[in-house]
Amino acid sequence: MGLTLAQIASRLGGRVAGDPQVLIRQVGTLERAVEGQISFFANPRLRRQLSATRAAAVILAADAEGLTQKPRIVCENPYAYFARVSQLLNPGTRFVPAIDSAAHVSPGARVSPSARIESGTVVEEGAEIGERSWIGAGCHVGTGAAIGPDCRLYPSVVVYARCRIGARAILHSGAVIGADGFGFAPEGGQWVKIPQIGRVVIGDDVEIGAGTTIDRPAVGEPRIGSGTKIDNLVQVAHGVKIGRNALLAAQSGVAGSSVLEDDVVLAGQSGVTGHVTLGRGVRVGAKSAVTKDIGEGQHVAGVPAGPVADWRESAVLLRRLPELRQALSDLQSRLAALEARMKP
Amino acid sequence: MGLTLAQIASRLGGRVAGDPQVLIRQVGTLERAVEGQISFFANPRLRRQLSATRAAAVILAADAEGLTQKPRIVCENPYAYFARVSQLLNPGTRFVPAIDSAAHVSPGARVSPSARIESGTVVEEGAEIGERSWIGAGCHVGTGAAIGPDCRLYPSVVVYARCRIGARAILHSGAVIGADGFGFAPEGGQWVKIPQIGRVVIGDDVEIGAGTTIDRPAVGEPRIGSGTKIDNLVQVAHGVKIGRNALLAAQSGVAGSSVLEDDVVLAGQSGVTGHVTLGRGVRVGAKSAVTKDIGEGQHVAGVPAGPVADWRESAVLLRRLPELRQALSDLQSRLAALEARMKP
Amino acid sequence: MGLTLAQIASRLGGRVAGDPQVLIRQVGTLERAVEGQISFFANPRLRRQLSATRAAAVILAADAEGLTQKPRIVCENPYAYFARVSQLLNPGTRFVPAIDSAAHVSPGARVSPSARIESGTVVEEGAEIGERSWIGAGCHVGTGAAIGPDCRLYPSVVVYARCRIGARAILHSGAVIGADGFGFAPEGGQWVKIPQIGRVVIGDDVEIGAGTTIDRPAVGEPRIGSGTKIDNLVQVAHGVKIGRNALLAAQSGVAGSSVLEDDVVLAGQSGVTGHVTLGRGVRVGAKSAVTKDIGEGQHVAGVPAGPVADWRESAVLLRRLPELRQALSDLQSRLAALEARMKP
Repeated sequence: MGLTLAQIASRLGGRVAGDPQVLIRQVGTLERAVEGQISFFANPRLRRQLSATRAAAVILAADAEGLTQKPRIVCENPYAYFARVSQLLNPGTRFVPAIDSAAHVSPGARVSPSARIESGTVVEEGAEIGERSWIGAGCHVGTGAAIGPDCRLYPSVVVYARCRIGARAILHSGAVIGADGFGFAPEGGQWVKIPQIGRVVIGDDVEIGAGTTIDRPAVGEPRIGSGTKIDNLVQVAHGVKIGRNALLAAQSGVAGSSVLEDDVVLAGQSGVTGHVTLGRGVRVGAKSAVTKDIGEGQHVAGVPAGPVADWRESAVLLRRLPELRQALSDLQSRLAALEARMKP
Repeated sequence: MGLTLAQIASRLGGRVAGDPQVLIRQVGTLERAVEGQISFFANPRLRRQLSATRAAAVILAADAEGLTQKPRIVCENPYAYFARVSQLLNPGTRFVPAIDSAAHVSPGARVSPSARIESGTVVEEGAEIGERSWIGAGCHVGTGAAIGPDCRLYPSVVVYARCRIGARAILHSGAVIGADGFGFAPEGGQWVKIPQIGRVVIGDDVEIGAGTTIDRPAVGEPRIGSGTKIDNLVQVAHGVKIGRNALLAAQSGVAGSSVLEDDVVLAGQSGVTGHVTLGRGVRVGAKSAVTKDIGEGQHVAGVPAGPVADWRESAVLLRRLPELRQALSDLQSRLAALEARMKP
Repeated sequence: MGLTLAQIASRLGGRVAGDPQVLIRQVGTLERAVEGQISFFANPRLRRQLSATRAAAVILAADAEGLTQKPRIVCENPYAYFARVSQLLNPGTRFVPAIDSAAHVSPGARVSPSARIESGTVVEEGAEIGERSWIGAGCHVGTGAAIGPDCRLYPSVVVYARCRIGARAILHSGAVIGADGFGFAPEGGQWVKIPQIGRVVIGDDVEIGAGTTIDRPAVGEPRIGSGTKIDNLVQVAHGVKIGRNALLAAQSGVAGSSVLEDDVVLAGQSGVTGHVTLGRGVRVGAKSAVTKDIGEGQHVAGVPAGPVADWRESAVLLRRLPELRQALSDLQSRLAALEARMKP
């Protein structure tokens, strides 16, 4: 039924200014929040929205505290604080541990008594489902695969044999973990399949979007590091290693055997070719294509991707090419005229 | 067992020329149609195919009526007329209303007696299935979600909790409606999940392709307007609003909180960044990336997208860059020669 | 329990050098292989890894035979040989033919007694499942569809009505075969659906990746040729014909009615527009967009795609545009100075 500002601050820290007894039932944006809701202010350009908001309270940083007289919580990182308030107010659906009578759990599978397995879901021989994990309907957990504790698999997720997923993972519907990597050897005009006998190992606190595919390799067990978040319809090919806290936006793709170190960010619809390494903290622009190693901390964009500043300049000049061509043409005429006059 | 031209025209309008008793059993292209089939002529470049066609009858416009002596239907929009004839001749599979014994309908769900729910499908507590809707096998309709009347969900569609879908929707296999938007706040090098507690609301007569994902937002309920058609493997991020009769081709994507007004067309593999608005009737070229607001009716292309005519010109000049560089180099030599002669 | 080099060579050909009794239990890369494993050498740049490998044996070509003293198999195509050795050592999971009690096979479906149908899978009226085919859990084989012999459908594959799949196909989870093509006729600002009454026909030895979608056409039955391999999240639109032994990498897409002849290779995230033909052996670079017919054997890249050498040159010059503009600007100044001096 909600929490007061004082209750929120006692759980999450921060300092309350104004009435600490204001009751907060939900979060909302500055623009849309209504009575009983808390919002946050982190973008200076939204100052007007801060003045006009109907939110009951606002989360903001110390340097912005004076911008409103509303009840407020002052903290260092208002956006992250807002996320945590929303987590408090929206704790997720409670579930009753159970194995649905229409689920199919192999005798040799180990399912925690605190887990929930919904109807139609298959847990194969030797597979493990961790404590308090909730496996939605119509999922498939392959032979010897392991799902850690406190995971949420939405309906229709497939985890192939022997893959491992850590704690607190969220996998959205249609995600496919551990399908065969795309590996074929050419022989006499045909393609000979290379068995993909490796597996995928995923760390803790990873979220994987709807329809995303992460392939198993021919050999080995490449890891996706803890804290990494992957959006919808992303392709992670076989043998790709991803560090901790990386962010892969929708429809991005990484080709075989490439390495994304910690904190790499791929924007939407970007791609990374095979067998390259993106150093820690590399950021790749939307629609870009990385074709070689990129050093730590670089921001790149374009096809092929280069430093983002260069790409911006090239993109502007590309639009100005007709003008440059015209300038060139003018020069040619003027020079020809000069040459004619200079004829000996 | 087929319809005569007269019967077709009595249902769909248009004027019959030639024998009205010709029996039509199926549609076909001019090139491939055989006896008993009707085709259409709308592209002047296919005049030769019109002359050669073996179709039993042809649909065409008044200004093309004289191009063939075949039995024909004369109408204003031959392509749309053809579509409607095909709908008459191919009315879709009939189905028997039923809840399969291997479906799982919660006691608190409301399923119309005229609906069909196939095996393995789960309809959660508080969900609604409208009249004459056909939910294929292995689907999941989440808690409190609503599917309108006359819908068709092919097998393995997932509709998350509380999402709403209007009348006459077609959702193809693997479509996922209402998975969590990709929202995280950075904090100390990690990503804090922002609960996505909004929902997706889809109008009437919407078609959604196989494997397409439409996310739910942190707050609010963005709408996808009636009559909009979305192809396969399209990503619609959280908070995206789409107007009526838009067309999103395969593998296109729209990032968070952007707005596509009525009649927007996204070609294949195009992308739209977050927080921008595409005005009514905007058309985005294939592989293009929209990075800012685009005014009503504009056609844009490129990365970043600009007016399509500019993009075409730039694309041509891009290919001619080696030549331009050579011209520049020639000018440099000639000017240097001139300068040398002019030395005081 | 493994095979000796002699046993391998007796099955696959090639010549053993060194101890033929070395027992091989698994394959591995030069870098990672351990005792009991066989690796291969095909890339001259890996000579150092060949020297350092701990593999028990190596597969290599005659001209490289002298580079190692390890037990080895000498053959013409070491990479393909390695693939075949891996197939021998990793024969795939054996399965017991059965129709799971929680599968739903229509009375009018024909399922080979040697096939396996897992729980939750639906095989509709008139559908056929060939000998020794293994249909994973939660699949849907539509009315009148046919799956050939020795196929493997991983969980959650959907094959729509009347589609046909040849022998030895591998379909990964989330693949959708035969959803409606994206065909609509515009009429009065709305979109009229054109019924997609054709079907998809897939040859032998085809592999289709996770989440890949292959649409059915309005009319006809376009074929995907034998030996073609398609990666994850690929879109093949309605009416697309693909020849034999083509390779479509992840997230590539082909628009309606285009033709890819034998041996065409699409790299990742590339696209092909509708109604064009790519001749035999055409290769399309990553992220490229083909907008017109491409003749046999050409390698193309770029947006729009042109000869790959031209694209490389343009890409380099695009990066050098700021420099070209500066050179142009210099010329303008110098020419202006010259003109001033020449003023009559």
